[in-house]
Amino acid sequence: MRETRLIIGASENEANLFYATHFLAPDAFVFVWTPDEKILLMSDLEVDRARSQAQVDTVLPIRTYEERAKAAGVARPGMLDSLCAFLTERGINRVVVPGSFPIEYGDGLRERAIDVQVRREPFFEERLVKLPAEVDAITRAMRRTEAALNTAIDAIREADIADGVLRWKGDVLTSERVRHLIGAQLLEDGLLGQRTIVACGEAACDPHNQGSGPLRAGQTIILDVFPRDEESRYFADITRTVVKGPAPETVRRMYRAVADGQACALRLIRDGAEGEAIHREVHATMERHGFRTGEVGGRMEGFFHGTGHGLGLDVHELPRISKVPATLRTGNVVTAEPGLYYSGVGGVRLEDVVVVTENGCINLTAYPKELEV
Amino acid sequence: MRETRLIIGASENEANLFYATHFLAPDAFVFVWTPDEKILLMSDLEVDRARSQAQVDTVLPIRTYEERAKAAGVARPGMLDSLCAFLTERGINRVVVPGSFPIEYGDGLRERAIDVQVRREPFFEERLVKLPAEVDAITRAMRRTEAALNTAIDAIREADIADGVLRWKGDVLTSERVRHLIGAQLLEDGLLGQRTIVACGEAACDPHNQGSGPLRAGQTIILDVFPRDEESRYFADITRTVVKGPAPETVRRMYRAVADGQACALRLIRDGAEGEAIHREVHATMERHGFRTGEVGGRMEGFFHGTGHGLGLDVHELPRISKVPATLRTGNVVTAEPGLYYSGVGGVRLEDVVVVTENGCINLTAYPKELEV
Repeated sequence: MRETRLIIGASENEANLFYATHFLAPDAFVFVWTPDEKILLMSDLEVDRARSQAQVDTVLPIRTYEERAKAAGVARPGMLDSLCAFLTERGINRVVVPGSFPIEYGDGLRERAIDVQVRREPFFEERLVKLPAEVDAITRAMRRTEAALNTAIDAIREADIADGVLRWKGDVLTSERVRHLIGAQLLEDGLLGQRTIVACGEAACDPHNQGSGPLRAGQTIILDVFPRDEESRYFADITRTVVKGPAPETVRRMYRAVADGQACALRLIRDGAEGEAIHREVHATMERHGFRTGEVGGRMEGFFHGTGHGLGLDVHELPRISKVPATLRTGNVVTAEPGLYYSGVGGVRLEDVVVVTENGCINLTAYPKELEV
Repeated sequence: MRETRLIIGASENEANLFYATHFLAPDAFVFVWTPDEKILLMSDLEVDRARSQAQVDTVLPIRTYEERAKAAGVARPGMLDSLCAFLTERGINRVVVPGSFPIEYGDGLRERAIDVQVRREPFFEERLVKLPAEVDAITRAMRRTEAALNTAIDAIREADIADGVLRWKGDVLTSERVRHLIGAQLLEDGLLGQRTIVACGEAACDPHNQGSGPLRAGQTIILDVFPRDEESRYFADITRTVVKGPAPETVRRMYRAVADGQACALRLIRDGAEGEAIHREVHATMERHGFRTGEVGGRMEGFFHGTGHGLGLDVHELPRISKVPATLRTGNVVTAEPGLYYSGVGGVRLEDVVVVTENGCINLTAYPKELEV
């Protein structure tokens, strides 16, 4: 590509920037990728670390261009003035930036007569196609995440029931306590878990409710764990739903419908498949099991989120398997996570992670699916 | 203010959005603040949770406006089409957005004839002035962070030395192991530590080097811990430097210079003080102690980062105490963290967090400063 790409951001929050540079920093820095060269413009604070760690061709102290901007008459040069001094030196007057590029910098560059073209996601097409090393990183993260999930489900399995409430090792077993068990085990294994969902009963009917308070027997408990591997920066993502003790018959039927919906997705995922069509089929599977989706009393019920999403350096990335159009390609890593949620009954979600192949997909998830524990 | 402010983002990464709504979500959503009303436009997935958790006046399903956009002839309405349908309904044709606003949405709104004005940080002036409850949240986070730091320093203190390397509880004491001690204790206390620095020897000479490998006696060890309280979302931030066993004389002198530089900053911080002037004075203090700053053999040495930064819902926020102009105001919470770094000698940094008052500042940090442990 004969274009120059530009990203300004903190690579800790900007996966594209980390992907292109493999340099992790908490504060915004400048990355310019000309047709021939990957270049970083770094502050004094980061220049040495960037030189030793970043996978780029050239690391330049931005101070050099700050001084050049000063010499050219800018009294107090900011990052944009320095960047423009650099672009001028290189004869660059047009850059392509990602959709997330801060408008403040976009406007500033345009005011300085730089043509700023915006490319929406995927900014780097190649990020969607995972290399074997990336699939390995995700798989390794999955194994350790499953170990943490297992610790949690074991605790639920071992728990006693008193007045309908779970008790474990002499104390009430709460969402918070199980979440902590998972977090501690993840940390031990080099993963950082955030917002882990351990949601029971009514909380489980809201797909993003983290859950709180005592876990109860006979109610659905959704465990959704999606930590980042601190070393590779890749995410894992897995969801299981369990019930302590016997599950109500409706919940068993919901579980079968969701498992069937997931199996349907896994059967359809392959190179060239349309995400929208898969999502539609999963919906139809739920309907065939007698589970409708729609608004009831001002609240959504049934299956009202996407079937899946890409997984990698971001926990939610392209391609989506949802009502938004997307074509799956060999090497995409995606989740398959249908769910059903009915107030007064409970929530069920099952999530696996797969890598798309020419003729189907390989499931990177090894953890069993079992409703009653 | 008779303007309408607009933020689109994931409140997990966009502190302004969390600040204004107190609603935490992993995916982008729309927040509109008219002169009279705080409004969220939410997906089906989040609308119920937003209704129960968000501190806003109105939560609307974005689907309503998606349908309106469809009715108006947009075949596949995206978030922007729905937002514009909403803005049209309300007669809003001008919005103010933060500097970090994604250029993709900014360009899209402008194409749809919405006047988009950009306000750089601080987008919410009031975020810089911490209310008592915010100062409390930071102080509580500081206490627990100090407890975790103490666990780490105790391990270094208790360690034996074999061939210059620290050993503790039968094994080599590494940066990784100490980082894990800190992380586990933070997790236990409801804080999430990321990128904790435990850097020894040459690694300590690079202010953002996380550190790795065995800790050694007689070398500077920088411990910089800046976790987020998972409940309040406020950060703590503290740095201490220790040496196991006797420190070399130069390191002792560096420590005195840094402590003196920090004392100088703490003396000057008060309502109305200029950050730039404070930073200059800290620099001068270091120089008086005989420690110069500048480039040596292509690497920066001495004191080459800012004196401090604002702390709150972001770990680095305004106001800065650095070479960038800023006036401190009562209620600002800022760090004071001068440092000195010399390759072949070591690095020393000391960081406290204070709240600015009319006549000075109150130190929110309680942890002692002791070089040799």
